[in-house]
Amino acid sequence: MKSMQNRNEQLNIALLATGSELVAGELVDTNSVFMARELADAGVVVNKKVVVGDRMSSLTEAVDTLSRENDVVIVNGGLGSTVDDLTAEVAAAVSGKKLLENPAAVEHISKRYGNKVVAENSRFYTQIKKQALIPESADLLDNPVGLALGFKLTINGAICYFTPGVPREMKEMFRRSILPDIRSRFKLKSLLKTSRLNIAGIGESQVQQLVNQHVPEKALREIQLGFRAHMTSVELKLTIDRPELEPVLAETLERVKAVLSDYIFSDSASLPESIINLLRDQKKRVVIAESCTGGLIASEFTAVSGASDVFEAGIVTYSNQSKTRLLGVSNRDLESFGAVSQEVAAAMVEGALAKTGADVAVAVTGIAGPSGGTEEKPVGTVYVGWGKPGDIHTRLMQVKRERNLFQRLVSSAVMDILRRYLLKISMDSIYYFDEISRKRL
Amino acid sequence: MKSMQNRNEQLNIALLATGSELVAGELVDTNSVFMARELADAGVVVNKKVVVGDRMSSLTEAVDTLSRENDVVIVNGGLGSTVDDLTAEVAAAVSGKKLLENPAAVEHISKRYGNKVVAENSRFYTQIKKQALIPESADLLDNPVGLALGFKLTINGAICYFTPGVPREMKEMFRRSILPDIRSRFKLKSLLKTSRLNIAGIGESQVQQLVNQHVPEKALREIQLGFRAHMTSVELKLTIDRPELEPVLAETLERVKAVLSDYIFSDSASLPESIINLLRDQKKRVVIAESCTGGLIASEFTAVSGASDVFEAGIVTYSNQSKTRLLGVSNRDLESFGAVSQEVAAAMVEGALAKTGADVAVAVTGIAGPSGGTEEKPVGTVYVGWGKPGDIHTRLMQVKRERNLFQRLVSSAVMDILRRYLLKISMDSIYYFDEISRKRL
Repeated sequence: MKSMQNRNEQLNIALLATGSELVAGELVDTNSVFMARELADAGVVVNKKVVVGDRMSSLTEAVDTLSRENDVVIVNGGLGSTVDDLTAEVAAAVSGKKLLENPAAVEHISKRYGNKVVAENSRFYTQIKKQALIPESADLLDNPVGLALGFKLTINGAICYFTPGVPREMKEMFRRSILPDIRSRFKLKSLLKTSRLNIAGIGESQVQQLVNQHVPEKALREIQLGFRAHMTSVELKLTIDRPELEPVLAETLERVKAVLSDYIFSDSASLPESIINLLRDQKKRVVIAESCTGGLIASEFTAVSGASDVFEAGIVTYSNQSKTRLLGVSNRDLESFGAVSQEVAAAMVEGALAKTGADVAVAVTGIAGPSGGTEEKPVGTVYVGWGKPGDIHTRLMQVKRERNLFQRLVSSAVMDILRRYLLKISMDSIYYFDEISRKRL
Repeated sequence: MKSMQNRNEQLNIALLATGSELVAGELVDTNSVFMARELADAGVVVNKKVVVGDRMSSLTEAVDTLSRENDVVIVNGGLGSTVDDLTAEVAAAVSGKKLLENPAAVEHISKRYGNKVVAENSRFYTQIKKQALIPESADLLDNPVGLALGFKLTINGAICYFTPGVPREMKEMFRRSILPDIRSRFKLKSLLKTSRLNIAGIGESQVQQLVNQHVPEKALREIQLGFRAHMTSVELKLTIDRPELEPVLAETLERVKAVLSDYIFSDSASLPESIINLLRDQKKRVVIAESCTGGLIASEFTAVSGASDVFEAGIVTYSNQSKTRLLGVSNRDLESFGAVSQEVAAAMVEGALAKTGADVAVAVTGIAGPSGGTEEKPVGTVYVGWGKPGDIHTRLMQVKRERNLFQRLVSSAVMDILRRYLLKISMDSIYYFDEISRKRL
């Protein structure tokens, strides 16, 4: 190993993402996120990630430096057929190898094209042939789902893997070829043990404060705590790096569970997944009536495989007329109290239950903004309704956030309210965007 | 300037993102994407982006190296109050300054806490005080929306900005303090001119092929082409770096528009935005009936501010019963043809129009998988219906993709079909996931 910096003192690994669209902020680099996570799961924490644009000088410097500093370098992107795809050329330059047309690559590309006839003098043909140029002595990495083959080459003593930028192709290549190859060369074993808790209804800083107040200092020194705020929940991670700390981890976990109790919704499942599991256990079907969230709640539920077991329907009533026609909300209620009101939220729940025959319903009506607010009901005013036939509840929240964040936060609150209703637990959660509850604290 | 590598030969700027969750692939680094884009808009292309974990050694090495290589370094993250927040310490170490409690920072934090009483010996108090430790002689950067102040410090001759990891706080600080400060020190002027076209219905490689076939080689050498495949569309970017190329850009743009014609939906608006604009112009209201996309289409429309002008309702009929109860689809059709059929897609359109009184409707029913497929109708089978009263159409597609990708691709196809219907243009687009059309080509 080139140094002993890595947490489990095994190997130093760096990721290099290439692409002008990445340094120009036009594209989010999710490929390196995928690779870093897969490696972390295998027990290796990535040493460094670097992103450079499609320029020979930057690419060459980056490959040269990273290969000197690390045992393994994974390069992503720039293997395509266009002029700004420079990676094979860079690999050849840094390693001092020639760039040659690789017969296996030519065969792979021909096969992918189903032996379609491509005129030999066409520009398209030249483009395709470019993808068959691979540094001499490199080992090919198979790409079962795309044109560009990856390759492996030792540079400055480091094993360098070159992978295509298309996420699906990179993922297949990473899982099928690269990770197994790394495993076969280095002993990967994780010394870490991690427990996770997913939390909804309170913010990250409140979770942290509660944990600090209730976990003994000694345990806090021995266990590594990680707090991660997602859009709609907080993940608390407790990690130990020695097996002898397992009893401390178990004890701390129990203590944290006692303190955060109802705020914890799972150890790994997402909030929609948890609720789908609850509904399935209770043999209940749900209907969601949405106004200001515009279908986002239905969409988050139905993104989960198996949602059809419990998801009866979603009704997105964006106009007043549709609230009347699809949910049977009375014109009188709409006129007297307004579409964003406790009364209409309750009527939406009733209507959704009646129209679909579902067992349980949630409804939400509010002002997402940026326009539509009044002095009495400013942008951010939200009424949530929930219940079953004969048992209907509502709650007022204030969610003063930009439109898309508003929709996400409201969706998560509505889902968490449904979770609490199904579990018959207190509704007094401190939604951190819920200004009314916060004042009550 | 330390070197002349930057495209407009102005200044070399690097971004350093810090955080173990970033190198472990637990979090996507969207902050650097934001900064890179803002800088690109100001005419500066970022030289390099580096990501390292929360370790003193990696952080120190990264700040030291990047500050030697660049004129400006923007460091993000690690300014919080927890033990893994090391950035201020690193800045002090690399610059050789002392870490001191900054009175202005103490005042800022006290104000943010609304002078709430925090016991002086509590751990919480210690945590807060940590955020007031700033390297001696650093200039503070105001944080109007959070606790942690940023700061500015010259290291190895480079101006280094240190910013908090919370996106909202970083963005405010970047726009209010950092970008104006960079502007005041360096002459930023963009030499680039870019035209963009948004394209739906065909894949990136097909777009590229068409462009290469129809644009003269000379223009292709003078204009930089960028192709970016989004989940649901392709963006084609044509960039020139000299004003004298403007006529070539204009001519090429016209040629590309002629070739791609109906596939182009906008120069900047997203697909849902474009459709909302179309509906508004035509004074039409739309209803969306969704089965397999589960509310995603409604959600994508209503994410756009102003959707309420044209979006009447969304009806997510996930169960057969809800198709009958909410859309009036007949049990006979469901039994004879199945929920995923041309007949049911058409009945969903009819029902959505009848139940809501909207002017135009689209409906989609399909098998998202992973389960639910049959030999006759495998996972990936989708029927789309669309039309207005008395004018109803359907189309069969095969979308063999993983569940979430399936939902996104189907959503975009349904939206594009609606766009084509509203514009009365050909429906023969080559949806690149539409295997039946592809076979017809």
